Amino acid sequence: MLPPSSEARTQAAQRQRLLTKPAGSLGRLEGLGDWVSACQDRCPPAPLTRPRVVVFAGDHGISAHGVSAYPAAVTGQMVANFIRGGAAVNALADAVGASVRVVDIAVDGDTDPSVSTHKVRQSSGSIDREDALSQAEVLAAIDAGRAIADEEVDGGADLLIAGDMGIGNTTPATALVAALTDTEPVAAVGRGTGVDDAGWIRKTAAIRDAMRRARPLLKDPVALLRVAGGADIAAMAGFLAQAAHRRTPVVLDGLVVTAAALVAEESARGAREWWIAGHRSTEPAHSIALRHLRMEPLLELDMRLGEGSGALVALHLVHSAIATLSGMSTFDDAGVSTDTPALSTD
Amino acid sequence: MLPPSSEARTQAAQRQRLLTKPAGSLGRLEGLGDWVSACQDRCPPAPLTRPRVVVFAGDHGISAHGVSAYPAAVTGQMVANFIRGGAAVNALADAVGASVRVVDIAVDGDTDPSVSTHKVRQSSGSIDREDALSQAEVLAAIDAGRAIADEEVDGGADLLIAGDMGIGNTTPATALVAALTDTEPVAAVGRGTGVDDAGWIRKTAAIRDAMRRARPLLKDPVALLRVAGGADIAAMAGFLAQAAHRRTPVVLDGLVVTAAALVAEESARGAREWWIAGHRSTEPAHSIALRHLRMEPLLELDMRLGEGSGALVALHLVHSAIATLSGMSTFDDAGVSTDTPALSTD
Repeated sequence: MLPPSSEARTQAAQRQRLLTKPAGSLGRLEGLGDWVSACQDRCPPAPLTRPRVVVFAGDHGISAHGVSAYPAAVTGQMVANFIRGGAAVNALADAVGASVRVVDIAVDGDTDPSVSTHKVRQSSGSIDREDALSQAEVLAAIDAGRAIADEEVDGGADLLIAGDMGIGNTTPATALVAALTDTEPVAAVGRGTGVDDAGWIRKTAAIRDAMRRARPLLKDPVALLRVAGGADIAAMAGFLAQAAHRRTPVVLDGLVVTAAALVAEESARGAREWWIAGHRSTEPAHSIALRHLRMEPLLELDMRLGEGSGALVALHLVHSAIATLSGMSTFDDAGVSTDTPALSTD
Repeated sequence: MLPPSSEARTQAAQRQRLLTKPAGSLGRLEGLGDWVSACQDRCPPAPLTRPRVVVFAGDHGISAHGVSAYPAAVTGQMVANFIRGGAAVNALADAVGASVRVVDIAVDGDTDPSVSTHKVRQSSGSIDREDALSQAEVLAAIDAGRAIADEEVDGGADLLIAGDMGIGNTTPATALVAALTDTEPVAAVGRGTGVDDAGWIRKTAAIRDAMRRARPLLKDPVALLRVAGGADIAAMAGFLAQAAHRRTPVVLDGLVVTAAALVAEESARGAREWWIAGHRSTEPAHSIALRHLRMEPLLELDMRLGEGSGALVALHLVHSAIATLSGMSTFDDAGVSTDTPALSTD
């Protein structure tokens, strides 16, 4: 795994100090601009003309066992809503100049043929009592994610976002995060879409059962996805690793995507250098995963929707970082005094 | 001061629960959308077509006394940079679909005639030893800010941002905040553009001196601005209050703008209902002012540039809040199960 260009990053950091502002005064936007420069291997960085969000839809057998406030039927209905453009991901993508693709990886039912060419199976197994996937399925799911990343990069995408959709998906995501970070389930389990107290207890028990079977497999990321993950999460792990291989920057979304990222980093060390954390969701396991990846999210807006929604809001910060680094005048250009190079403040 | 429409706010909050997402899952974007609906008195809210940032430029006599890392000459040079479009505010406004106006309120020198029609004087007084302004000047500055807000609203602006530019301006801003919130100067004084230890000590002493003269005037906002403020801050106070009178939403920027807001709220109670805090800057007095106004900023990106930069980055969150509230399908429209109304999560 090649890292982003350290030369371009250094050039960007040097350029930041020549721009008409006090050194460091754009705060985290400066490091963000340096990172984009490094990913693009050019300074100043080019504007993003084709950022793309791919929503990975999949159901989970565990959702039949009372861990979610909602029935699995909603997943297929929401896939149709994504296609029609009526979901949060569509509105947020429009607002930030991104386009949306939805892929059915493992929806429990049929979806439009236009989105189901990469489908691995109908729903994943109920991880409290069975493996989520067979060995052939987990490999197919990872390959699907890789192929989708390739399709997008070959199609011109210059930044990628993975989004998740699937009733019950915070259960396997939390199991994976807790297993890989050696965290007690009770410290990691959240309310998902809003499950009640009894459901939270069932969810915690299911995660504990899944972790018991996952623990001997901590050194084997593919086996972990097979036993305690699911087809959608496996596909996202492949997608995120392949984006890094293809030297394409990624903004991570919430818990489910970040769980996939955690597993992907285990098998593709250094991939994380191509990713930034868009936001911190309200799910406790998300913060645990971010800490393990040593990532500080850009936004904290108490979002917990999935679909790539938090990453899309954060994408504007990437646009802003590029706009300042590429569009601002230098002190020399502007004829602003540089012996004491600063300006206003607040 | 009329508040934003509580009817429209209630309608918006009800609409949020009908949209195809788990209730509350967009986090702070939901309250933001409700607020915009209330300000516009319509639900769903209309897209912002003409958000506008006005940068108020002014110098401060105190800058000659070693409280800033930079010479006052930079202020006029930066005004020229704003006009040419080379500053951070220009790049960030372009990125978020806003336009920029710069006004010279009290720059220490001549600026382009196109931006100096509202000029009150050349620099404000050195507040450690003299009043910032005469009584006639403070009234002229407040009137200038009001007139500018009227010009912008009459010109079609549907959201306003005030930005600041002026070497030394965090000194009067901190004095005003510390005086109005009864805070010890040492707890409020920051580094501004990056002053050194000796400069920080001089700045703290200057603020202490200004506060001594300001303290008897805490019940008189205009007198406070005259004694311990400056023409640019007085103009921003007038601008922010008038924006509220004109029922136009405002995104607040960093310390200097928020100091003006704190004073404006003292004389125009309830104006704050028309404002939201865009970001938290690194200046300690900014957090003190936000707490006093009971505002939780949307972003924490360690920005400290001024010019309206933080508010412009936050403006995208307002766009996103409007996009979801106005653009998403309802459960009924989308045919998504509503008996258990939720979806994905992370």
